[in-house]
Amino acid sequence: MILSFMRNPPSFDDTFRDQFRNLIAWRRDVRRFRADLLPQGTLERLLEWSLCAPSVGLSQPWRFVIVDNLLYRSQIGEVFKACNATALASYSGETAQNYAKLKLAGLEEAPCHIAVFADRKTPLGRGLGQMTMPQMAEYSTVTAIHTLWLLARAEDIGMGWISILDPARVAKILDVSQEWQFIAYLCLGYPAQSSDTPELEREGWEKRHSYAEFLLRR
Amino acid sequence: MILSFMRNPPSFDDTFRDQFRNLIAWRRDVRRFRADLLPQGTLERLLEWSLCAPSVGLSQPWRFVIVDNLLYRSQIGEVFKACNATALASYSGETAQNYAKLKLAGLEEAPCHIAVFADRKTPLGRGLGQMTMPQMAEYSTVTAIHTLWLLARAEDIGMGWISILDPARVAKILDVSQEWQFIAYLCLGYPAQSSDTPELEREGWEKRHSYAEFLLRR
Repeated sequence: MILSFMRNPPSFDDTFRDQFRNLIAWRRDVRRFRADLLPQGTLERLLEWSLCAPSVGLSQPWRFVIVDNLLYRSQIGEVFKACNATALASYSGETAQNYAKLKLAGLEEAPCHIAVFADRKTPLGRGLGQMTMPQMAEYSTVTAIHTLWLLARAEDIGMGWISILDPARVAKILDVSQEWQFIAYLCLGYPAQSSDTPELEREGWEKRHSYAEFLLRR
Repeated sequence: MILSFMRNPPSFDDTFRDQFRNLIAWRRDVRRFRADLLPQGTLERLLEWSLCAPSVGLSQPWRFVIVDNLLYRSQIGEVFKACNATALASYSGETAQNYAKLKLAGLEEAPCHIAVFADRKTPLGRGLGQMTMPQMAEYSTVTAIHTLWLLARAEDIGMGWISILDPARVAKILDVSQEWQFIAYLCLGYPAQSSDTPELEREGWEKRHSYAEFLLRR
């Protein structure tokens, strides 16, 4: 690795931990971006650090595709519109009305687009840890995406993860290996606003529940 | 949410960002634990904060099962041994010899065990964002696990993610809903050592590659 970081184990204090908790509390799924571009090289630097993420068997199955081509962006925008219309049609009554009001992507405004895939077939890691759980390649890729998300937020850059897309159509538009599994389409840019509350909660779609509701003991 | 954090958008500086990069660089998949217990309430506090993680449609599909029962722990240890023996048998020659030397779990030493599942069928979030990608429930759960991992490391607590397990057998031992998808079995405790290099790299199993090898442009 060419990244430079301290060679002695770091020591984290309460100040850092407070700030880190604020980072995770103020990280949002951003759908409203300002038009400003990110400084040259920012995206690559964030991506490089995001690959400190864990991966099963050190298999590094993550594949990042920076999408700059405006035709591809536009085609992916059309896929989103079609999938979102289908999703809307699955709701009815007040729920449908609420869904229709939600802004679920920032594809047109975001200066940076990245599609992320996982390669289950990579020879790296020689399959370690994947025999009983082949989906670990996808999970490893998700930890890299999540690392990118947090690193971006620490630089006041917002990220949105779009899942309302047909994976096969995205892979076809971007002409990537059919062996790769589509994981995420990411938009990055400076957010129009900051909040400690998810937009879906602010819009009344769903609210966060206490961790105790998701905890069992055995 | 009952968590208390600042009510104004936080401002992160270079000092914080440097420390955060050190956090992600020094987070390891820990398999060697000291015997010391975590202070009372630590695990619950870490879990509570970890649920600041993103989830598709705010569906909060994560289900955490703290496993204290020693019989269950022992049964899960047996499942690991069986699955690991099968994995070893899939390698041959020098690779098999190398695999046999690896320590791939810290189940016997770790003071805390948590099994994590994802509930695709949760009514929370009303399915938003999951129609084209139902696996988003699993991916959301992975971001919560990864948040827990980083929060733990910031308190000098190590975590290991064990995937060499038969998901169906783990779910049966822990008697959880058959609808839930098994995502991870986590061991937590104080690590025997700190390192900026993954154990699989130190042991010569695999090495990290430059981010540029995983980056495409379209």
